[in-house]
Order: sequence, then structure tokens, then C-alpha cells
Amino acid sequence: MKRIKLIVAYDGTNYSGWQVQNNGETIEGVLNRAISELTGEEITVIGASRTDAGVHALGNVAVFDTESRIPGEKFVFALNIRLPEDIRIQDSCEVPLDFHPRKCVSTKVYEYRILNRKFELPCERYTSYFYHRPLDVERMQKAASYLVGEHDFKSFCSIHTQALTTVRTIYSIDVDKCGDFITICVKGSGFLYNMVRIIAGTLIQAGIGAFPPEHVKEMLLALDRQAASQTAPARGLRLVEIQYEKM
Amino acid sequence: MKRIKLIVAYDGTNYSGWQVQNNGETIEGVLNRAISELTGEEITVIGASRTDAGVHALGNVAVFDTESRIPGEKFVFALNIRLPEDIRIQDSCEVPLDFHPRKCVSTKVYEYRILNRKFELPCERYTSYFYHRPLDVERMQKAASYLVGEHDFKSFCSIHTQALTTVRTIYSIDVDKCGDFITICVKGSGFLYNMVRIIAGTLIQAGIGAFPPEHVKEMLLALDRQAASQTAPARGLRLVEIQYEKM
Repeated sequence: MKRIKLIVAYDGTNYSGWQVQNNGETIEGVLNRAISELTGEEITVIGASRTDAGVHALGNVAVFDTESRIPGEKFVFALNIRLPEDIRIQDSCEVPLDFHPRKCVSTKVYEYRILNRKFELPCERYTSYFYHRPLDVERMQKAASYLVGEHDFKSFCSIHTQALTTVRTIYSIDVDKCGDFITICVKGSGFLYNMVRIIAGTLIQAGIGAFPPEHVKEMLLALDRQAASQTAPARGLRLVEIQYEKM
Repeated sequence: MKRIKLIVAYDGTNYSGWQVQNNGETIEGVLNRAISELTGEEITVIGASRTDAGVHALGNVAVFDTESRIPGEKFVFALNIRLPEDIRIQDSCEVPLDFHPRKCVSTKVYEYRILNRKFELPCERYTSYFYHRPLDVERMQKAASYLVGEHDFKSFCSIHTQALTTVRTIYSIDVDKCGDFITICVKGSGFLYNMVRIIAGTLIQAGIGAFPPEHVKEMLLALDRQAASQTAPARGLRLVEIQYEKM
């Protein structure tokens, strides 16, 4: 038996998120079927990040175990011809049997894209959040600075979380403007349910001057979801990359 | 009576192009209905560029005449709430009655986007052309240089053209690489049917070394569609802007 690691890119628009569920098609479900069909086994992948409905990925990570003789690096080709056009494997390789995409130490990189202009651009509507009020990038960057480091992010987490602890570490948050796009790039060891989208929603409010950037410190200390701003829509979010410490 | 000019952005994926036709929904058809509904008149817009099925626009131009009392600059708001999400007016204003979007002298700016990497990225599939063989941007730029200026572009024009002359002037072609994207930006006074897509297809072939860049000179001189390369797919093309000499 061997363990295969996949780097998975997808357009999440037409999916009910990553994780298999009763209602609606999921990325995991499509992958399980495609791999099972290819190897003739009953395969269930383990995903690194269980992204929400409408969230995209350039590099989510999934593993599965197989007795197949197909070499690890060939799965990328064999799977892509069986997958729908909104899911594309970017790489495949064999990894040690004890490699677990959620349990092994990693850095996750998420990007939240905001289209900040007077009128929406139709071609960008599924992959960015259109926000028409002018955003002050410096204020957003300042507000973001208080979130960097190890904190209890209870205020920045859906009340529906099942996490045992809401303490997480953010390594960096970069807010950059390029043309009409403002991109919030967040790197951390792990994220709570809706955490990046609540951070994005909060930075947007800081960007229109709804509160002074320093106010983010109090939001953190409140340990109360009500203290932070609204969750920004899923379509602006993409999982860019997961970097593992080993391998 | 007054004449209103619209700047129109659209995602062309789900349309049979700009121009009203018997089969399939068109941008023009949707605009005609939305404006007619708004003003209570029977409106037919005149478009500057009759883009093909699947081609996108950030700034196509259309005009229509109306007796409506709605101020020119308010049409943008009144129309956007009536339009589907894949069409968005960017600006509206009153213009002189003799302004004609096709007959007035203008510079048109088109961009052709190529995603050049080993595997496709699903989120980019409708707005770029995925091409996996590595492209040499310098060769593409060199090949493009022979197309700049006034030439008979008969070789770079669909045989189905109805143009009286195939002589056109290209002011500039810039081939730029940014990450995995190669963008071909073409500026000219006017373009023939499929001209930018045939230019893109030809530069791609130059980019993989199918012929030396200088060979483009002979392609032009051949005055024969067979001499140039294949038409690149519509989805990579977007009309960026139309700049009018007056106004």
C-alpha cells in the first residue's frame, strides 16, 4: 500500500464546499468517485482544509491510500482527464504513510480578494467580493497588524465552531492594492471556522473608517463573535497554498 | 431627443456575442430590452464593437436615442438594477447627436490573456486561454513587432469578413508576462473579423518556436488566411477600452 498526496485547485462556485455531505455536490465527493473509478478501490480522501461552499483553492492538499500500481506522479494526469473542468489536480506524489494533511505541522496561505470600484466587473464576480465604497488600504493594514501573532480568536470565529481551543497563530497579514483589487493575504498555522472571512469583513469595516484600526485589539479581547464585523462572502476567498514543515 | 452613451462591461461566456441574431441571447438584445423597459420606448442600441460569442468586455461603447427625462448620468444606475449580473454599465452620459460609436475616429484596446503553466487553474478557465507548452515571451514580442503599423491584414482576418478593405493600422502590441499569465495588448484604429484572435494564435505559435519571428512578415505579404496560424479561442479575449478622438 502507498499514500498519494494531491495538490488540488478548484473553482468552488458550484460546490457545497469540500466535505462530503448529504445535500449537494462537494469537491471531496467528486475526488472520491474519480479516484475510486481509476483504481477500482473504494477511496476516501483526507483533505487538509475543508473549505466552505463557494470558496476556491489553488492548492488544497488531499491524501489517499491505494494498492494501485500507478506511479504517484502519474495520478495527476490520470485524474485530470476524469475530473470536471472546475477541479484540476496540480501535482501528485507518493508520501510516507504517516503523512496526514491536517495533523502534520503546516503554514496555510489564504487570500481574500476585494474588487473596490464604483461598478462591478462581471468577469470578476465569482472570484472576488465587489465592494463599492472606497477602502483605505493603510487603515486596513494597520487594523490587520493587531491580529498578527498568537491570540485567542474567539471573536473571529463562527459560533458553530467545533474547535477545542480558539487560540491560533497568524504569521502575517498583507493588504495590497493592485489596480481596483485589494488583496488580503493571511498566513497562519491553522484557521478557525470562517476566521479568514471574518477578518476580511472586519478589515473592510476598518477600511471605510467604521472604527479606528486600534479597535481590533478590543475586538480580540472581547472573546465574543458579536465584537467583530460581518463574515465577508465566500466567493472572495481562495486557499493559495499549504506549506508543510517536513517533505 | 438626446443621445446617451454607455460604457458596457460584460462576461461574454453565456452570450452568442454582441449583435442581435436569431439564435441565442446577445448582449445587444439584453440591453435593448432593459433600456426599452426603462424608458417605455422601443430602443435599439448602436454598439462600437460587435464582439464574438464568448468574448468579454471591460469597456465596450453603445449609444441610443431617447426622449426620456432621465438625466444621462443616471442611466448607469437605472440600468444596472435591470441587467443580469454578467452585464454591468460602467458609465453613462449624454453625447452630441452626431456621435456614432463606429464611425467616429477611435483607438480600440484589446487584451488576449494566456494562462501558460503545466496544469489549468479552474478559476481562470472562462477568462483566459490555457496553453501548457512553455511560451517564449521575447519571441512573441519580436513576432508582434512586424504587425505594428499600417498593413493589409488579409492573412489575419476571417475569410467570412464583409469589410471593404483589409488595410488597418495597429499602433502597438505589448506582450507581457505576469506570474503564469501572458497578456497580449493590442491597440489599433480598428480590427477585422477575428483579427486579434488570429494575431494571438500566431504569436503563440511564434512563442513555441513553430517558426522564426521574422516569418510574420511573409505571413502579412501572403494576403492569405492560410498563411497565419489558427484563431485563438474567444474566452481569452477582452475588449478593454475604446478611446475616441473627440469627447
